[in-house]
Amino acid sequence: MQNIVCFVSDFGLEDTWVGICHAVIHRACPLARVVDLAHQIPAFDIRKGAAVAAAGVYQLPEAIHLVVVDPGVGGGRRDLCLTTLGGTRLVGPDNGVLMLAAERAGGVEGAYAVDPSKIDFRTPLATFHARDVLAPAAAALACGVEPSSLGEPVDPASLVPAPFAPTVSDGDYVVAPVLECDRFGSLRIRISAEELEARGLVCKSLEVGFGHLALEVPFAHTFADVEEGEPVVLIDSSGWLTLAVRMGSAAERYGIEPGASARVRAL
Amino acid sequence: MQNIVCFVSDFGLEDTWVGICHAVIHRACPLARVVDLAHQIPAFDIRKGAAVAAAGVYQLPEAIHLVVVDPGVGGGRRDLCLTTLGGTRLVGPDNGVLMLAAERAGGVEGAYAVDPSKIDFRTPLATFHARDVLAPAAAALACGVEPSSLGEPVDPASLVPAPFAPTVSDGDYVVAPVLECDRFGSLRIRISAEELEARGLVCKSLEVGFGHLALEVPFAHTFADVEEGEPVVLIDSSGWLTLAVRMGSAAERYGIEPGASARVRAL
Amino acid sequence: MQNIVCFVSDFGLEDTWVGICHAVIHRACPLARVVDLAHQIPAFDIRKGAAVAAAGVYQLPEAIHLVVVDPGVGGGRRDLCLTTLGGTRLVGPDNGVLMLAAERAGGVEGAYAVDPSKIDFRTPLATFHARDVLAPAAAALACGVEPSSLGEPVDPASLVPAPFAPTVSDGDYVVAPVLECDRFGSLRIRISAEELEARGLVCKSLEVGFGHLALEVPFAHTFADVEEGEPVVLIDSSGWLTLAVRMGSAAERYGIEPGASARVRAL
Repeated sequence: MQNIVCFVSDFGLEDTWVGICHAVIHRACPLARVVDLAHQIPAFDIRKGAAVAAAGVYQLPEAIHLVVVDPGVGGGRRDLCLTTLGGTRLVGPDNGVLMLAAERAGGVEGAYAVDPSKIDFRTPLATFHARDVLAPAAAALACGVEPSSLGEPVDPASLVPAPFAPTVSDGDYVVAPVLECDRFGSLRIRISAEELEARGLVCKSLEVGFGHLALEVPFAHTFADVEEGEPVVLIDSSGWLTLAVRMGSAAERYGIEPGASARVRAL
Repeated sequence: MQNIVCFVSDFGLEDTWVGICHAVIHRACPLARVVDLAHQIPAFDIRKGAAVAAAGVYQLPEAIHLVVVDPGVGGGRRDLCLTTLGGTRLVGPDNGVLMLAAERAGGVEGAYAVDPSKIDFRTPLATFHARDVLAPAAAALACGVEPSSLGEPVDPASLVPAPFAPTVSDGDYVVAPVLECDRFGSLRIRISAEELEARGLVCKSLEVGFGHLALEVPFAHTFADVEEGEPVVLIDSSGWLTLAVRMGSAAERYGIEPGASARVRAL
Repeated sequence: MQNIVCFVSDFGLEDTWVGICHAVIHRACPLARVVDLAHQIPAFDIRKGAAVAAAGVYQLPEAIHLVVVDPGVGGGRRDLCLTTLGGTRLVGPDNGVLMLAAERAGGVEGAYAVDPSKIDFRTPLATFHARDVLAPAAAALACGVEPSSLGEPVDPASLVPAPFAPTVSDGDYVVAPVLECDRFGSLRIRISAEELEARGLVCKSLEVGFGHLALEVPFAHTFADVEEGEPVVLIDSSGWLTLAVRMGSAAERYGIEPGASARVRAL
């Protein structure tokens, strides 16, 4: 799986950007397999990009992850290649979009500022580092180049952090942000399966609250464990605690958006 | 073409589900070629999924078809691998979504309940059988594994049927459901090219009716056989009788939706 | 890169057309790499298809470009394979959709009317030449077949021209059409980097006008060179002069649509 490049961006599918990057990677490394994880991230939405990248890394830690949500392209921000303690390699801009994924992969081990002159002799276009710096860097990794050969090391402490509030304890409650809402309207909360266990939240039902709203929700293995239209919490495929409504949308039902603060306790 | 896996789902392209399944298939069978036929099936719309899968099978009978529209995931429904008399192999949940495709491929020959323990040693996640059971099963087929090695045989008579009304005769008329509406607003009706011939409907023009509406429409080879804005019936690329409007939308013009009952007779 | 097939169409991603063409190409030429540049071209919008194809060719001149926006499919229009002075090969219908791309690739060198009988023994379906004629032609090129083997040569002067007004001088001004609007609302104008230089327009700022509107806009290397919400002109990744608003939409801000006539002069 070392030759699989998972690609996340806010390029959409209306323009040619995604395909151009595919072609650039295939040209530089014919054995690479580019897998599109998501390109419909809302334009410039670093938070959504970070959440989607983390879901990808959780499920495919062995792959190379190329993540491009990059409102500051061409400005001073660095092009990064990160290695993690879990072995995942990440490529993207230094604006926080890689950092939740890095955390899910065990934390940052090494960080390198990609130097275009080490990859290609052409001058990168200021508006399209994805094509001219980041995709070529991912292709180089897929072909076996060491991350440390892509550019100078940078201090991990200097990286822009992930764009989410931390998960904290507050009495009986764990307070954590909603990371994102999926296509089915399910809400992913920044509490991982491991944290749920560590904090004693694996039980028959949970209280999940947002502001004045406090829901008592059964903790299940699957949507089918509750009736249609009923709420349920479970660990979803991205490894986060998730509030869903069977055959419905939890986001619409409760009027909750990503970024909202959730409080959770065992019942 | 035995290594081509055609993939249909209601996962959309906003989340990572489709890409994760691609990566899982590439990892298990590097020689597989995954082809995305459609992932924008409305969430939980088994009818649309069944129609799209049938169109794919009609055009690519030699491929393996992976079809995931699965509102009951994690509940009791079975994960299926079907073989057909026409040689097509189908993988998906036992909720009817495979059955129109199976019919288009000559009918079910063998049916097997995929047993995850025969594919992988991990426990499948209850909410994501696509990743943990169905995509791995399709990858196994692409790598040459026999369908009968994927799990126990099941009685084809026990399979959930296709989610469409049958095509029947009513005097001079053939009465059949509208299967789906394509991007251009053309309406596919459950009458195949072979049935049209068998029922004597290959002629200069057809009456196509819906409720009180009765249209006299020329039967043509292509949209360009009529003027812009004019209705036309033809056999479209999915092999069904199709009502279209040149450079327009038949669905909008006549206010018809999938599931509507059409009556057709020769004029 | 000779085996990369860049694919542009108005098929959308809701139906199976795009995937069917992928499978047809993989079947005919297993070593081909199909790269999706854009399939969300509005239905029948030859202008948008032409602009997108030109952007692809500018960035990936070595690839084979398959471009299908084809309202006249099945009518008299020819299926074309074009070779260009820059070496790019183009496949698509003779309705102008290939011609801006051909111009960007140095101009048409040879033109051939693809003869389905030279590729496959089956009769093409009148409604789906993409599957039965154009994709197989692109696959043949990817496998090393010479363009001249695909059909009879046609006179380049007989080809339907590109669907855009020409770029002309008017006193101090260069007058050129807006080719397209990208996902971020940036407006691409039919003035290439080379023309900008030849016409003395590479300077500190430009006047960009549309009707009564006349903007004074800084000419920059990247969006980040101006403040958020400020307009900027630059050469974008498709090689055209582009009017953008940093972190915003120039199209919305100024109410400009593709096809509008822009006038530009140095300040």
